[in-house]
Amino acid sequence: MAAPLSGLRVVEVSAFIAAPIGGMTLAQLGAEVIRIDPIGGNIDYRRWPLSAEGTSLYWTGLNKAKRSVALALNKPEGQEIARALICAGGEDAGILLTNLPASGWMSHAALSAGRPDLIMLRLIGNPDGSGAVDYTVNCAAGFPTATGRGEEPVNHVLPAWDIAAGLYLATGLLSAERARRRDGRGQEVVLSLADVAFASVANLGYVADVQVNGAVRPPMGNELYGAFGRDFATADGRRVMIVAISNRQWRAIGKVTGLAGKLAMIGPMLDVNLDEEGGRYEARHAIAAVLAPWFARRSLAEIAGLLEGSGILWGPYQDFGQLVRDDPRVSAANPMFAEIEQPGVGRILAPAVPLAFSGTPRPAPSPAPRLGEHSDAVLAEVLGLSAAAIGKLHDAGIVAGPKEG
Amino acid sequence: MAAPLSGLRVVEVSAFIAAPIGGMTLAQLGAEVIRIDPIGGNIDYRRWPLSAEGTSLYWTGLNKAKRSVALALNKPEGQEIARALICAGGEDAGILLTNLPASGWMSHAALSAGRPDLIMLRLIGNPDGSGAVDYTVNCAAGFPTATGRGEEPVNHVLPAWDIAAGLYLATGLLSAERARRRDGRGQEVVLSLADVAFASVANLGYVADVQVNGAVRPPMGNELYGAFGRDFATADGRRVMIVAISNRQWRAIGKVTGLAGKLAMIGPMLDVNLDEEGGRYEARHAIAAVLAPWFARRSLAEIAGLLEGSGILWGPYQDFGQLVRDDPRVSAANPMFAEIEQPGVGRILAPAVPLAFSGTPRPAPSPAPRLGEHSDAVLAEVLGLSAAAIGKLHDAGIVAGPKEG
Repeated sequence: MAAPLSGLRVVEVSAFIAAPIGGMTLAQLGAEVIRIDPIGGNIDYRRWPLSAEGTSLYWTGLNKAKRSVALALNKPEGQEIARALICAGGEDAGILLTNLPASGWMSHAALSAGRPDLIMLRLIGNPDGSGAVDYTVNCAAGFPTATGRGEEPVNHVLPAWDIAAGLYLATGLLSAERARRRDGRGQEVVLSLADVAFASVANLGYVADVQVNGAVRPPMGNELYGAFGRDFATADGRRVMIVAISNRQWRAIGKVTGLAGKLAMIGPMLDVNLDEEGGRYEARHAIAAVLAPWFARRSLAEIAGLLEGSGILWGPYQDFGQLVRDDPRVSAANPMFAEIEQPGVGRILAPAVPLAFSGTPRPAPSPAPRLGEHSDAVLAEVLGLSAAAIGKLHDAGIVAGPKEG
Repeated sequence: MAAPLSGLRVVEVSAFIAAPIGGMTLAQLGAEVIRIDPIGGNIDYRRWPLSAEGTSLYWTGLNKAKRSVALALNKPEGQEIARALICAGGEDAGILLTNLPASGWMSHAALSAGRPDLIMLRLIGNPDGSGAVDYTVNCAAGFPTATGRGEEPVNHVLPAWDIAAGLYLATGLLSAERARRRDGRGQEVVLSLADVAFASVANLGYVADVQVNGAVRPPMGNELYGAFGRDFATADGRRVMIVAISNRQWRAIGKVTGLAGKLAMIGPMLDVNLDEEGGRYEARHAIAAVLAPWFARRSLAEIAGLLEGSGILWGPYQDFGQLVRDDPRVSAANPMFAEIEQPGVGRILAPAVPLAFSGTPRPAPSPAPRLGEHSDAVLAEVLGLSAAAIGKLHDAGIVAGPKEG
């Protein structure tokens, strides 16, 4: 059985995180994703962190498994080739994914004039079309002021809204493509990064909590809301996150620590029902006071040995270095990961798409292309241009390969 | 033109956030999503926060636009009805989405025996099948130790990995359904929450940064890495996030604040090139020292007036209350939002799916069902059961409606 999306062709004209993650997800599912960049690269091409050779670890990480075409997008001839690539092909093609200002030649009106069944996915910042990025959306979304201990707002470091937006774009693209096969009609699909964040805030109940309860979620450090969960320090200077959502998990904490008897005293002491998530949340400080010394007397290794297989949900805190060095889930032992040779970077561990399909073996991760690596092949395969015609485009500075690009 | 996914039918047997978000996204795109729960509700049915009536704002927020069927899933007769609902229908049905332990009657082997082309999406915690939740994955992923100022690890409050996992499930489901229409074959698709997190860490370049540079990203408060961006306090006790990624955005900061001359002194002073993102990152503390007094002398309203339309990327910090009360993007003025009557909660602002399709008007958001609200209708429509047969199932305690459920 072929890869899930084999046969599908998507053209991506993008930068930064969200749209590239959308395109990479489709590429890692087997679609042919052609990323078109200006000659020399787009604004994200040199984004930090860089390898010793100056290659962006960020760009190569976000553009794996794509084909790269470099065109003079500031010239009519380059724009015409991009337009032709976007509009070429049959019912499995004619799809554009972009987060760039889609005006002029790249507007939906202009492109759909050449291909009426065009599907165009377009990411914008704010719903009114004004600019926004993950950081300027997140500060307004409410999470930074609910994060940490409340002395000051704390930004998340994970570009969570960009990642969600990229996956909404992939979902929207496949939905529009399914509708096109059903109705024969393409369409433009617009996604606002701010809408992604604010829809999520509402979906999680934070908006309704303000509207019907007048409640504004306060910062609670590393504690869970509405259940028992928090971090504990270990004897060897490490830290673990402990979570009990179900009653079975809660009872497992008492069993493993041998503190069930002391924990049972908390219910009558505070008049709370520890057989309910909410009761355990209300009693969280007393529970933590009983449990903290148990963790403080044991090393991470001892704790891991006792918690493994106990049914307790837990995890160690790790920095990125500890994650890469110590966690077998981030190694070639995990079927999602494999070592690849990334041009300009070297030998690195890279993930496939996290989805594992039983009908096809997990596709090995592919490196990101060098800029313009597929310019000639794509112009020949998709547009049927001759080597001579492609050579002329190089001479005229309209197309660039990996050396010039 | 019909809603993008109209005609598609998905059965969801789930709890908590990830799988429900996947199903809700498909439902809000027009698919018929039938969530099956045990009579009385699953483990997430009473999750905090609650309305005054005791209805979960969390559950209702994550299950909008679905149909609800309540069955005695602990009895063979209830399991048989669930199995029949999962396997019923033509080429647009036969799809199960779950994050529950899929053993026994709900295993892929058992279900696909009844329907060979079944598509089954299954979310697990760790790649080895052991349990994990957002909190226990996130602590290991490296972000908490890179968040805040470094005194201690800081958990994100947003369940970012659950949201990403839900959208990966939606993408994977549509990919498997596209492949089934192409090849006529269904399959099981498994997603690990830990893999979602660790693939993202690698996709963003953090793993390669450790492997090829030996660099572990340190916490940097609310500053961006690799570009200029940070928060500033205003004269009226508010805070704003300011970001300059492009040179145009950088020059706009100097222009709007009238501090271009002073900012230009920083380059020669620190021997950095402020015409590059990286140089502005290296000089971020000097840049902030020049800009901070400008923000500290002005109110949020004054700053907003000066920054609007300037091309500078910025946003105010808001808590959830300020977001709901003050931000027009979270109001019925935003086409994504509309007021709905949510049973058990009241009149609240609810979002549609953030994707806007030009071929169809943005579908108005629908409330979440009451538990068991569609039990009778679904058993009649999908299984063709008579009112008498359905009545017998109620009497036997196999099926429950909204009153009993």
